[in-house]
Amino acid sequence: MNYTPILKTIAVLGGTGKEGKGLAYRWAKAGYKVFIGSRTPKKAQLAAIELTDLLGGEAVIEGVDNLTAVQYANIVALAVPYAAHRDTLESVKDILKGKILIDVTVPLVPRKLTSVRMPPAGSAAQEAYEILGDEVQVTSAFQNISYEYLMQDEPIDCDVLVTGTSKEARSETLKLVAAAGLTGWDAGPIENSAVVEGMTSLLIGINKQYGSTSAGIRITGINATAQ
Amino acid sequence: MNYTPILKTIAVLGGTGKEGKGLAYRWAKAGYKVFIGSRTPKKAQLAAIELTDLLGGEAVIEGVDNLTAVQYANIVALAVPYAAHRDTLESVKDILKGKILIDVTVPLVPRKLTSVRMPPAGSAAQEAYEILGDEVQVTSAFQNISYEYLMQDEPIDCDVLVTGTSKEARSETLKLVAAAGLTGWDAGPIENSAVVEGMTSLLIGINKQYGSTSAGIRITGINATAQ
Repeated sequence: MNYTPILKTIAVLGGTGKEGKGLAYRWAKAGYKVFIGSRTPKKAQLAAIELTDLLGGEAVIEGVDNLTAVQYANIVALAVPYAAHRDTLESVKDILKGKILIDVTVPLVPRKLTSVRMPPAGSAAQEAYEILGDEVQVTSAFQNISYEYLMQDEPIDCDVLVTGTSKEARSETLKLVAAAGLTGWDAGPIENSAVVEGMTSLLIGINKQYGSTSAGIRITGINATAQ
Repeated sequence: MNYTPILKTIAVLGGTGKEGKGLAYRWAKAGYKVFIGSRTPKKAQLAAIELTDLLGGEAVIEGVDNLTAVQYANIVALAVPYAAHRDTLESVKDILKGKILIDVTVPLVPRKLTSVRMPPAGSAAQEAYEILGDEVQVTSAFQNISYEYLMQDEPIDCDVLVTGTSKEARSETLKLVAAAGLTGWDAGPIENSAVVEGMTSLLIGINKQYGSTSAGIRITGINATAQ
């Protein structure tokens, strides 16, 4: 990780779930101050204690309710299950203005995990943008990473494709991808998020068929120095 | 290529374009009999002569009109530009019954190549299925391969994700992926084709940003022996 920590603050909504907790762990480890948000602050506090212990007591992680988490952060990652996507966004919409939302959500359909089914907006991230409006920058990232690996310190053999409503927001998000120890790519406008969210269903299907749990994707053909 | 040629017959519609010609080259080289189809049979004949020369005169390649090409083949690859997608399919619909159509089309929007825009059916391949109906098996493949590399004999650093209306059709298509010297993956039902077609726009965007011409994808995390 050739990344300079600057103690920026990140909120992770749904930070008690496996994916959210994994991202909180990686960012706290990289020197960010992390607020774990949950509808149940008690659970968020327990997750914060668990992660702080895991990082040897040195990290700055706090567990709070979702609203408080958003209030303290300039970048907010949303890692709730798709069923809670709309409600969570509506509950924090007003205080998200002027901030960046990184949507980690995959709109999986229960019992149809291996089939791509996007919401009417086109993708979960486009739905977020519809709900939040122009005053929030929305990016989409991390959908293809197996959360099991985030809390381990080994390298993860999967790239992160970042889409978003502006180049600046994608660029900020790419910094957090690097801080999490992952390789990221600017994958263009928010409309392209459908491809990345949908790829998760393809990877679940490939895992199923080939008896694996860790199918991922890598971008090839780009000279490493060009990146 | 650990593949046993059995002189099956493949038609490549749009076989005079770069992608179609590249696929025709690889399959002829692997021992298939290939019919190159075009709306202009003269052009198809010239392409067939060019490829036969390139393969040392040993390959069995013929250039004909689209209808004739479909008539002689049990598997038909469609590699026309998206603007000709619907018309080509409607012109061969009746004689495609009982065969497999491999749709190679990417529904790119002119001047918006780096933004994903799927047709109302969900993807080009789903549109093909809507046009052709239940009596044709439709698969989708090869959208992410840079056509420049197909006529070269070097290994291509990009996997092929195969989606389709049945497991059998995907499995037949995966044989043709292997015959073309590429690594393929069963990526599930035809709905998933939107992800693979859309990925092409992401790769074009990544090429643009990182000054490359050969961005591709690889599936990771699967034990090679499992595949």
